[in-house]
Amino acid sequence: MGTSEARGILTDGRGEGVVETQRFTFGSAAGGGMRLENGEALAPVTLAYETYGTLNRERSNAVLVCHALSGDAHAAGIHRGLDNPGWWDDMIGPGKAFDTDRYFVICSNVVGGCKGSTGPSSTNPATGRPYALDFPVIAVADMVEAQRRLVDHLGIDRLLAVAGGSMGGMQVLQWVASFPGRVRSAIPIATALRHSPQQIAFNEVVRQSIMADPEWRQGNYYEYGQPAKGLAVARMIGHITFMSDRSMEEKFSRKRKNGGFRKFDPDFEVEGYLRYRGDAFVKRFDANSYLYITKAMDRFDLSGGRLFERTIPLDTRFLVISFESDWLYPSSQSRELVRELKRGAADATYCEIRSTYGHDAFLVEIEEQTHLVRHFLERTFNGNGTFRR
Amino acid sequence: MGTSEARGILTDGRGEGVVETQRFTFGSAAGGGMRLENGEALAPVTLAYETYGTLNRERSNAVLVCHALSGDAHAAGIHRGLDNPGWWDDMIGPGKAFDTDRYFVICSNVVGGCKGSTGPSSTNPATGRPYALDFPVIAVADMVEAQRRLVDHLGIDRLLAVAGGSMGGMQVLQWVASFPGRVRSAIPIATALRHSPQQIAFNEVVRQSIMADPEWRQGNYYEYGQPAKGLAVARMIGHITFMSDRSMEEKFSRKRKNGGFRKFDPDFEVEGYLRYRGDAFVKRFDANSYLYITKAMDRFDLSGGRLFERTIPLDTRFLVISFESDWLYPSSQSRELVRELKRGAADATYCEIRSTYGHDAFLVEIEEQTHLVRHFLERTFNGNGTFRR
Repeated sequence: MGTSEARGILTDGRGEGVVETQRFTFGSAAGGGMRLENGEALAPVTLAYETYGTLNRERSNAVLVCHALSGDAHAAGIHRGLDNPGWWDDMIGPGKAFDTDRYFVICSNVVGGCKGSTGPSSTNPATGRPYALDFPVIAVADMVEAQRRLVDHLGIDRLLAVAGGSMGGMQVLQWVASFPGRVRSAIPIATALRHSPQQIAFNEVVRQSIMADPEWRQGNYYEYGQPAKGLAVARMIGHITFMSDRSMEEKFSRKRKNGGFRKFDPDFEVEGYLRYRGDAFVKRFDANSYLYITKAMDRFDLSGGRLFERTIPLDTRFLVISFESDWLYPSSQSRELVRELKRGAADATYCEIRSTYGHDAFLVEIEEQTHLVRHFLERTFNGNGTFRR
Repeated sequence: MGTSEARGILTDGRGEGVVETQRFTFGSAAGGGMRLENGEALAPVTLAYETYGTLNRERSNAVLVCHALSGDAHAAGIHRGLDNPGWWDDMIGPGKAFDTDRYFVICSNVVGGCKGSTGPSSTNPATGRPYALDFPVIAVADMVEAQRRLVDHLGIDRLLAVAGGSMGGMQVLQWVASFPGRVRSAIPIATALRHSPQQIAFNEVVRQSIMADPEWRQGNYYEYGQPAKGLAVARMIGHITFMSDRSMEEKFSRKRKNGGFRKFDPDFEVEGYLRYRGDAFVKRFDANSYLYITKAMDRFDLSGGRLFERTIPLDTRFLVISFESDWLYPSSQSRELVRELKRGAADATYCEIRSTYGHDAFLVEIEEQTHLVRHFLERTFNGNGTFRR
């Protein structure tokens, strides 16, 4: 994701360059794993993660970036020999919003995922086979608890910022709720304190589509291959909700597609696009991870004061961002979050960015986000008294 | 569909009473069938239809009501021995919006459907087996051409009004385009001159969901049973788009559901509701009909002056209605229709009704619609000089 056209404009082409995904494992059958929110134990736990920039001597310049539903640890730069810029490459790098000349940026793949971190496709040490549905139910709080272990491992006491869009924004809020003393500032983008019934409904249809595919085999498909058709349809639904009516109009209008001869072949470009995105997704994302992670999102709920269950330090700062045409995580949800923060007397700034890109905007509206994030981080960092340019 | 609570309020409990579905068949292998828009022939063609009220001597009080995607000929009253009010029962009956003390109301099931009219589940006379995908591609214009034959058969030259919501509204507009001299007034509700890419995208996912089910068997499932899982998921997607974010919030909020014990059983009421509606749909609607009809909707396009291809009589009147919270057929599409009508110098009134019900509003916002439709029909009828109360 991200627009390749926009890339490099803001940074004179300077990027993170070649980066490598690392792994951090904790816990074993003997102990030291995670106690999950639902009470079950998980061990060992591996997190795939990447870092960009350099941790300063005071360890005060670390920014944790959290990915969305189908994202991964590869947020910036490219991998050796590949042309695969990270999902927020436009935002992370020298001179960019998360300026790696100044900050040490960390991104890890969530627990429950399928991009190097422990999830349903990982080997269950009890059986030597993939967990599949024996993987325990995970919560956004568990994703954050695993990240906390990684942050400990990196020797960082307090993060300068935790930032992310969509489900990444939920993790940002969960960090504040779970470990308020360890978050100097928070940047929740295009997110919500909890899912509305409409958001749950879309996720439920996504799950039903996967589970309706007989190739899903109650989750035990690993020796046979993915439930490709169900997963592709699930992702098509997602893509409709990530775009806006307007951005679809601009991208496709009613342009016709060539080459359909059988009945119900695509007539319109938008149909071909959705099928392409659906099929591509099957190659890169585990169906069971999609089930587990969407459930974690639906159950997430920090409304009604739960965000403030632990005392938040007075100097914690919030930058809340939403996008005008985002109907999946509408601005009304960000405004509700801001009201909740204000009720808690938090230091919160809110900005709704004009955009036609819908929910995808947090990945593609780079210029405005860069402006907001850069200044917010500079003020936070300098106010901390640990850095002057 | 429709709200049973609202029923009877406006009419002191008077309804159409017991009604019966009738059948009209035309054409045979020898000829007299339909020449479809794509050039293919279809014969015989049966239309299931119902009528309510009495045709007057001048045959000037006939109103054709057109149903939406999954509707049928049963628009009002109940069938003998059943408690199954028609889909627009709140709008059609003595003293109601379409007042059967004054008007003769006709509703027929569309060609391509599965509720008594000829469609892919009908017997192909060439093989003695269901058509399945040998059924020809149909267009909204074909639905209307078949209705025109029925209207001829009933001896009606000019319809006092053609009315309908959603795909019903498309048929209304197609009547104006195909047979302008035979339409005295038109009431297109919650509809569009053509689908946007977002509307096409939702329909495409619906089709993909059906076709992804191996039980679909390339359309040849009739001896085995419906592709139940794919069709249920398809309908779940539909139901999300028929409601609004707000109406889902009001109906479900985040209320929990009891009884889920296995992983990925529904947690929330909204999930249980969608599964219930999806499963119920499988029992009442043919999967192939869903494919054919959604394609007809996506290909429908009367924009760019095509609505006026034939000359529209000067006395033709339009009442365009849309609903504030309808994001599937947003008011902007109705406003575009009104602009198109005004460019054609047509006599058009437009009203956007306040509602939180989303696209479902045309089925449930009875009071405002009744007010608008009743007065519009009275003015049209009286202006015609054939009726004074």
